[in-house]
Amino acid sequence: MPEFRKCVVLLSGGLDSATCLAIAKSRGFEPCALTVLYGQRHRVEVDAAKRVATSLGVTDHRFVSVDLGQIGGSALTADIDVPKSRNELEMSAEIPVTYVPARNTVMLAIALGFAEVVGAQDIFVGVNAVDYSGYPDCRPEFVEAFERMAGLATKAGVEGRAMHIHAPLIHLKKAEIIQEGMKLGVDYGLTHSCYDPDERGHPCGACDSCLIRSAAFESLGLVDPCIPAIRDSARAQ
Amino acid sequence: MPEFRKCVVLLSGGLDSATCLAIAKSRGFEPCALTVLYGQRHRVEVDAAKRVATSLGVTDHRFVSVDLGQIGGSALTADIDVPKSRNELEMSAEIPVTYVPARNTVMLAIALGFAEVVGAQDIFVGVNAVDYSGYPDCRPEFVEAFERMAGLATKAGVEGRAMHIHAPLIHLKKAEIIQEGMKLGVDYGLTHSCYDPDERGHPCGACDSCLIRSAAFESLGLVDPCIPAIRDSARAQ
Repeated sequence: MPEFRKCVVLLSGGLDSATCLAIAKSRGFEPCALTVLYGQRHRVEVDAAKRVATSLGVTDHRFVSVDLGQIGGSALTADIDVPKSRNELEMSAEIPVTYVPARNTVMLAIALGFAEVVGAQDIFVGVNAVDYSGYPDCRPEFVEAFERMAGLATKAGVEGRAMHIHAPLIHLKKAEIIQEGMKLGVDYGLTHSCYDPDERGHPCGACDSCLIRSAAFESLGLVDPCIPAIRDSARAQ
Repeated sequence: MPEFRKCVVLLSGGLDSATCLAIAKSRGFEPCALTVLYGQRHRVEVDAAKRVATSLGVTDHRFVSVDLGQIGGSALTADIDVPKSRNELEMSAEIPVTYVPARNTVMLAIALGFAEVVGAQDIFVGVNAVDYSGYPDCRPEFVEAFERMAGLATKAGVEGRAMHIHAPLIHLKKAEIIQEGMKLGVDYGLTHSCYDPDERGHPCGACDSCLIRSAAFESLGLVDPCIPAIRDSARAQ
């Protein structure tokens, strides 16, 4: 039996990271999942990440909390309202308030530490430069610069082994990500992408994240499997 | 009155970071201090960092916890004994067990987020390549690669403003760091450097960190102002 190489996959429990995990597996890696909790909705994200990891056969899944609320600066960690029902022009016009300063740098840094501990030289991250064009840390040049830095930051680097940051979704549209994931057997009903879920963890159906994903399913002639929960959430209000 | 530019200083409350904070002030910056808590000795480090920040007139001091114990791999975050009374050859021979995987990458990443929130383009970090030659993330090439990545990771980067990572201690010996700090009025009696303090927070006097600093004071004909606490700690055992 071949020995699979370990890799670390950043897993939020959202649509992108679930697809990214399935891609890592399809490339022959044995994925160790890392969920970094930085916001206010720990339980919802932990539950979704656990469901996704279990469904894709992950046996080593770690949860690391980092209290980014202490530095503020984002609707996702501070007391700023998450915008609802914006049009595409508004979404792409500027860096959104849901941008968390240095979020991907922090998550990749922790993933780098985890990779070093488990002896992995490969890290998968579901960043996307198409739908999140306003986020500086979703751009290919950021990922490349992080990879270079990562190679110098660790024991592996000192010993001359490179560190690889894989961002397989970076140039894909949301609908292409969904197609890729469905080919690999991802159950998107298990994922959670909403920025502003209700108390039961149901998606709001109105934030940028909810709108982008349901429109993508629609463009494929499909219904977002999270829609029933959205309807349920609307009825309860 | 001139308007001082804000900067972020990573402040552990140890000898190096206290000196680094004093240097940032002496260069005309208004420092915002960031203490990243990643280990098991939160109270001791929080107390030391608060004392040092207050003594140097810092008005904005944040504390961010990140649970690196979840990924393990170090005597400082997992259940591994901190080595005692090693000789210099042993200290420099290999990457020590007190090395925390990707620690400086994680701390600098959080500092980057904080810098973005307060509008700073300068981050000071007290890394040192002389006494900590075994730590991959204390090398100048790591700091340079982080700086380059940081410039691409943030809004400032998108807008064409560079991010500067200052590592003013990187080529100094411990005794030179102490001389520099004493010129700038640092009270080293307020600092805490020990890897393995007792329950009262008193230094052990025997770990690498305690040995390196007391030898440095000695080489200057001085006594480490933390020595009375070390003696007190020894008497109590």
